[in-house]
Amino acid sequence: MIRLMGIDPGLRFMGWGIIDVDGNRLKHVADGVIATDSGESVPLRLCELHGGLTRLIEYYKPLEAAVEETYVNRNGSSTLKLGYARGVALLTPAHAGLPVAEYGAMTVKRSVVGTGAATKEQVAMMVRRLLPGAAILKADASDALAVAICHAHHRESARHVASGTRMA
Amino acid sequence: MIRLMGIDPGLRFMGWGIIDVDGNRLKHVADGVIATDSGESVPLRLCELHGGLTRLIEYYKPLEAAVEETYVNRNGSSTLKLGYARGVALLTPAHAGLPVAEYGAMTVKRSVVGTGAATKEQVAMMVRRLLPGAAILKADASDALAVAICHAHHRESARHVASGTRMA
Repeated sequence: MIRLMGIDPGLRFMGWGIIDVDGNRLKHVADGVIATDSGESVPLRLCELHGGLTRLIEYYKPLEAAVEETYVNRNGSSTLKLGYARGVALLTPAHAGLPVAEYGAMTVKRSVVGTGAATKEQVAMMVRRLLPGAAILKADASDALAVAICHAHHRESARHVASGTRMA
Repeated sequence: MIRLMGIDPGLRFMGWGIIDVDGNRLKHVADGVIATDSGESVPLRLCELHGGLTRLIEYYKPLEAAVEETYVNRNGSSTLKLGYARGVALLTPAHAGLPVAEYGAMTVKRSVVGTGAATKEQVAMMVRRLLPGAAILKADASDALAVAICHAHHRESARHVASGTRMA
């Protein structure tokens, strides 16, 4: 059994989800969203995201993390802000000693729904189906669980990450 | 007297500079570049940047930090990577309890050279002139000192940041 954390990064809303994986069996553990106040300064918002993720890692003790590579098709300023949030999402679990994998949105959709052209609603529906018992309310939390599921599939098939190995 | 840290963010090279400010007098303390290996994973590189900046803050004990807002005119992927590095540059001093200011490249040039249209060489030359004794070798370190000088000018004129106040 291994515990995985999925993260859907954003400066305003950082989605997170924790699942347990035992062979082909997936179990929902917890999910949620860390929200930051857009009226606060960016450095303080990044502190809140970093502190929130750090506390979740300390509490749930996942052994590996996976982060969604969000598409870049917005203007430069939005992309830079998304970059700040993704930077914190990649840094924080690595800083806690977890191996961190990255998956593109297409890979996540293909892994969860079976097609890279799946809609957000289809992904959310399949996440609920694959993780019975999860009462998922927020879209960013559902997306984070989808990344965790994607990582469960890829790490099982490829075995490119040694089970339970910590990198730092 | 107050000690300031300037940061010129980048994923490959993170420039940093420390100066002491006493009224209108500026004094060079230290500067350098934290380099990361482009062959390593992004999460580990962000860890190295975060760890490096954290150790510098612990050692030199600056009371405020300033980060350059680099221009965004590159492709989405480069902008995202710059965003990761800027995210760490904004997060790390804030996490250490320092107020963090941001300045656009034009503001930095105007503050150091007197014109926003200054070349990189003019900025480097003025940094050496304003900080006699500094044997600055690397461009990123020189740019980081320029941001620190810019912050020294702005915080003195505007007094919008209380001297020595720590935010966290």
